[in-house]
Amino acid sequence: MIKVGIVGGTGYTGVELLRLLSQHPEVELTVITSRSEKGIPVAQMFPNLRGHVDLCFSEPSAENLAPCDVVFFATPHGVAHALAQQVLDQGIKVIDLSADFRLEDADEWEQWYNQPHGAKSLLPEAVYGLPEVNREQIKQARLIAVPGCYPTSVQLALLPLLEQGLIETSGIIADCKSGVSGAGRQAKMGALFCEAGESMMAYAVSGHRHLPEIRQGLTRAAGSQVNLTFVPHLTPMIRGIHSTIYAPGKTAKIEALGVDGLQALFEQRYADEPFVDVMPAGSHPETRSVKGSNMCRIAIHQHKDTGLIVILSVIDNLVKGASGQAVQNMNIVFDLPEQMGLQVVGLLP
Amino acid sequence: MIKVGIVGGTGYTGVELLRLLSQHPEVELTVITSRSEKGIPVAQMFPNLRGHVDLCFSEPSAENLAPCDVVFFATPHGVAHALAQQVLDQGIKVIDLSADFRLEDADEWEQWYNQPHGAKSLLPEAVYGLPEVNREQIKQARLIAVPGCYPTSVQLALLPLLEQGLIETSGIIADCKSGVSGAGRQAKMGALFCEAGESMMAYAVSGHRHLPEIRQGLTRAAGSQVNLTFVPHLTPMIRGIHSTIYAPGKTAKIEALGVDGLQALFEQRYADEPFVDVMPAGSHPETRSVKGSNMCRIAIHQHKDTGLIVILSVIDNLVKGASGQAVQNMNIVFDLPEQMGLQVVGLLP
Amino acid sequence: MIKVGIVGGTGYTGVELLRLLSQHPEVELTVITSRSEKGIPVAQMFPNLRGHVDLCFSEPSAENLAPCDVVFFATPHGVAHALAQQVLDQGIKVIDLSADFRLEDADEWEQWYNQPHGAKSLLPEAVYGLPEVNREQIKQARLIAVPGCYPTSVQLALLPLLEQGLIETSGIIADCKSGVSGAGRQAKMGALFCEAGESMMAYAVSGHRHLPEIRQGLTRAAGSQVNLTFVPHLTPMIRGIHSTIYAPGKTAKIEALGVDGLQALFEQRYADEPFVDVMPAGSHPETRSVKGSNMCRIAIHQHKDTGLIVILSVIDNLVKGASGQAVQNMNIVFDLPEQMGLQVVGLLP
Amino acid sequence: MIKVGIVGGTGYTGVELLRLLSQHPEVELTVITSRSEKGIPVAQMFPNLRGHVDLCFSEPSAENLAPCDVVFFATPHGVAHALAQQVLDQGIKVIDLSADFRLEDADEWEQWYNQPHGAKSLLPEAVYGLPEVNREQIKQARLIAVPGCYPTSVQLALLPLLEQGLIETSGIIADCKSGVSGAGRQAKMGALFCEAGESMMAYAVSGHRHLPEIRQGLTRAAGSQVNLTFVPHLTPMIRGIHSTIYAPGKTAKIEALGVDGLQALFEQRYADEPFVDVMPAGSHPETRSVKGSNMCRIAIHQHKDTGLIVILSVIDNLVKGASGQAVQNMNIVFDLPEQMGLQVVGLLP
Repeated sequence: MIKVGIVGGTGYTGVELLRLLSQHPEVELTVITSRSEKGIPVAQMFPNLRGHVDLCFSEPSAENLAPCDVVFFATPHGVAHALAQQVLDQGIKVIDLSADFRLEDADEWEQWYNQPHGAKSLLPEAVYGLPEVNREQIKQARLIAVPGCYPTSVQLALLPLLEQGLIETSGIIADCKSGVSGAGRQAKMGALFCEAGESMMAYAVSGHRHLPEIRQGLTRAAGSQVNLTFVPHLTPMIRGIHSTIYAPGKTAKIEALGVDGLQALFEQRYADEPFVDVMPAGSHPETRSVKGSNMCRIAIHQHKDTGLIVILSVIDNLVKGASGQAVQNMNIVFDLPEQMGLQVVGLLP
Repeated sequence: MIKVGIVGGTGYTGVELLRLLSQHPEVELTVITSRSEKGIPVAQMFPNLRGHVDLCFSEPSAENLAPCDVVFFATPHGVAHALAQQVLDQGIKVIDLSADFRLEDADEWEQWYNQPHGAKSLLPEAVYGLPEVNREQIKQARLIAVPGCYPTSVQLALLPLLEQGLIETSGIIADCKSGVSGAGRQAKMGALFCEAGESMMAYAVSGHRHLPEIRQGLTRAAGSQVNLTFVPHLTPMIRGIHSTIYAPGKTAKIEALGVDGLQALFEQRYADEPFVDVMPAGSHPETRSVKGSNMCRIAIHQHKDTGLIVILSVIDNLVKGASGQAVQNMNIVFDLPEQMGLQVVGLLP
Repeated sequence: MIKVGIVGGTGYTGVELLRLLSQHPEVELTVITSRSEKGIPVAQMFPNLRGHVDLCFSEPSAENLAPCDVVFFATPHGVAHALAQQVLDQGIKVIDLSADFRLEDADEWEQWYNQPHGAKSLLPEAVYGLPEVNREQIKQARLIAVPGCYPTSVQLALLPLLEQGLIETSGIIADCKSGVSGAGRQAKMGALFCEAGESMMAYAVSGHRHLPEIRQGLTRAAGSQVNLTFVPHLTPMIRGIHSTIYAPGKTAKIEALGVDGLQALFEQRYADEPFVDVMPAGSHPETRSVKGSNMCRIAIHQHKDTGLIVILSVIDNLVKGASGQAVQNMNIVFDLPEQMGLQVVGLLP
Repeated sequence: MIKVGIVGGTGYTGVELLRLLSQHPEVELTVITSRSEKGIPVAQMFPNLRGHVDLCFSEPSAENLAPCDVVFFATPHGVAHALAQQVLDQGIKVIDLSADFRLEDADEWEQWYNQPHGAKSLLPEAVYGLPEVNREQIKQARLIAVPGCYPTSVQLALLPLLEQGLIETSGIIADCKSGVSGAGRQAKMGALFCEAGESMMAYAVSGHRHLPEIRQGLTRAAGSQVNLTFVPHLTPMIRGIHSTIYAPGKTAKIEALGVDGLQALFEQRYADEPFVDVMPAGSHPETRSVKGSNMCRIAIHQHKDTGLIVILSVIDNLVKGASGQAVQNMNIVFDLPEQMGLQVVGLLP
């Protein structure tokens, strides 16, 4: 049994980790920390866990985490740099769900997150935990940076096209719609039921922190600098991300392939991926089809009128976009079947 | 492996059975029928099942169901009487999620459902599938009538009080709030997003079909005729039932017990029940704490001002109120661990 | 034109007052205060007011409010006691939407609100602003206490029965369901979209601050002490209160009347009331039918099985339950047609 | 007083017309038709209208409509062609909310709507009722085609740019998110609360009926053929459209203007428009800010990274996207102040 610790268990990615890990056959939940809730039973804060998780929150310290084989960090960005180093020094694997180790370039990180990076020396060894790209490196990693929710959804939709050089590296647009849980479990005015409900809005049109992460991933896939316009939207639902991606095809290549060829390309690229589902041509995936599940569903379209390639991609932001992907990484690191504990069927309706 | 058939798999209890059974380690999904969708892959209608269920819908007939060990009926009331008989005749167990075999009294059934009962001869052997009451009879049953959603929620909240003769048998009030999925997956005006959303309403105040079922169950528990006022409400959420139950205590007995005694009584009554969670005194259970889970959570209150006993009880109407309870019955019938395939943690948020 | 000031304009009752008053033909919006938002245009905080309200928030002080004919207090309880006195001293009418002047008994107030009452000397002249009961006193009042949302909904449903002595004064139950806006516009965890959405829960079962207010109003109507069990519930919708009220009839009197007599009684009682709509017998009012409107809709039922009287009553908690009723009071005080500015049709869907 | 008839009053645009017209000071609601509901009081179907509208539904016939000065058609496309002709023949103005007279080209109409056009001879005189473009023609019109919801939102966002030749006429993308009421008040599976709730999906990616209408309007504004990619999405809210529009600027011209110049251009273009609100630079309009209101709010952005122009535009699909715009047209036709009856403040929260 793998002994697991969670640092910062009071947010939505924390409770989602607990939901998944409490059902995982090879995991022993060992420590869960929260400075503010120290001593409180986890199941008192999250009553869905009653009967499933007996732990109490404890102080986040290297000492408390010492018995673990792996520690998940479900903390806001910037708060866990120091502790992550101490945990690694004890020979424990670290899987970080925050943005702290996602960007290779510390300067870029500092610019987008408005604070000094507290663990630059760890950046070179951090592995970007998108299994569909980095499975081999993940196997060897000590420190894994779990991708953000928007970046997961956008990259999976564009990888096959960029890897094959079928689209231009500029002019890409990602119009993304996220459920409100993406804002986290904090008492913020904008996330109130009466503020976010029955309404739709774009935000951060001028620039969102996930932009450099997406750009970095797409650039790697393309082998040359990619630029894109990324516009996130707040959608009145709890879970889910729907990305609508407009990809400017290289005309000759796309004409040669046709829509059927594109469809085949995606199917081939993801044939062996347990958590990417290429839907039949012409599908319109719904976010609810992946509610609670680690699946990413993708559909490929070509607009009749303009010929533009339109990719639709849906995930559950808290699962494939966070905690589920984190567990997927853990399975890879510990050489377990990658789907173990993750074969949850989406909750529909 | 138990070979399972489902008759009428296109509704919400059908897809919920598929979600649960596709993860059940001892089940082999064998047949799923729908007259209207014959030949269509189940996963085309319910994309959350893609990769989990490969079956196509087939014609509902005794012949098609012949290979099964057990058949779940997830049909509307009144449509499966004849087929149920034929299935039983083949030596197959039947677990019926409709109302067809819940009432002992065929006359009462015919009066509430406005049609002749098509299988009266089966009524004497039908077992009411509330494991918390009838576990022993369920073990021996050929034909199980899975309780309705409201009746499950109300009975579990009142059983301890009635069994101990602590409350009056008249004057009980059950004010129940149900999510919209209780209305089924049919294109009805009142269940539209724009009709049921952002609104609350009572319905069937003058009498609802679940009333005789609740009354029958409570009467059995009390050992004498129980009458109650039952008012269902349509609530703008997808899943969940919240029952608020006002129980007139027998003054002397309740005073002798006190709230602590009541709490202890409930805890004792359900100590060995895997799917009833008596919450700490003073709790306010939320329906979301059981979303997707087979748990019923109960809290006991006594109103400070009036001394009235108020019981709060929450279930997921599609799980403990239908498909989950059906699987729980199957586990009992086939002598499997009762929790097998049902230890899903509620999806929160 | 009546010059109107609003103290505490940043909450939901504040913005709702602005919506209604900006359309009122006899009102000139003159001052709106908020300590925290001083200098900010109101329409920047509430973009629905762009083009309708040009005011900026200003400091709440007697001086700033001096030009007003009437001042609405839309502050949390307990914060405006001193300022209310100063405003009254300038000869300005005060219409208070908080709970500060609703209870006649200062001791009871202090006990439920856990703080000393800061303006006891004003209590004797405060008029409880339920026009359906106190219209004549309101006409003469300097200081009006606008009823709470739950109390409005419950009292209007019970007044005809209690005034006529048709029901017992104990054993009444009010099971009330409120939209989330009742929790106010404050960044509280429990009011987050992902906490309150897709879920139903009771709260404050052991006792809620609106209980003494309801009891006081019902006791006045009955002419003798009334006790009731009041259980509020949080419902996943933005606006609306649905009260389901169980009223123990005095058997002989109710039998003499019958349901038709009860219906006639309610119709007569409210025949001249512009904002109480007695629906046809057997109706099930929906909260959405009053969304944005000052109407209270009521339906009378008698449960077939138990004979219990069940009254259904719906209001918009922010309109008839707060700001609309406040404007209705203003119209009465200033001898304007009572419906002026309040004939908004409910927004359906 | 203008005598108004409504044909097809049982849908959402019908009830919305009734809400607005019942408050309009110069309108006398005279006839409302529905074949299926003949004889039923309107307020029985739509209880929000109780006390505001006394009419009963009557048979849709030229005879019944004869007393009217103007008739609104709120029927599905294709059903009112013949009746519209008869009504016009009686000297009555027709304001059609369906798609029947929006496209100049009958062939294109027949192709997108899969049926013969039943009133081709009326097409030449039909005026496209977008006041921000066609105010002068509307004044003279007998027959007005009220624009669709998506087309209104997209055109208002692009007109200033296309009229000034600032963007390319190909490469435009409109990613639009609509509330569920856009699907109409019909018992369709996909519009159920449990199907459309808590989920997001694109639909009709390959081509939607509003595409030719948008293209026609944009082409007129540009003076040359415009092509665009239009992707509609179903959003879990009742009302509202949020259009996110990606407009490829002509580089030199845009650089010359800068974002400030673009902002000024929009402000100038709409300076005298009562129902277009150009928000401050950098704003993110929310659909709820126009809930129930006839306003269109627009914000202009330029993406920092790519320089792409991004326009955000929100309307209430049932008001500015249908019934409110219809009333605005009526006001123009009858030479009334254009805002009469339409100064409703958005319902927030």
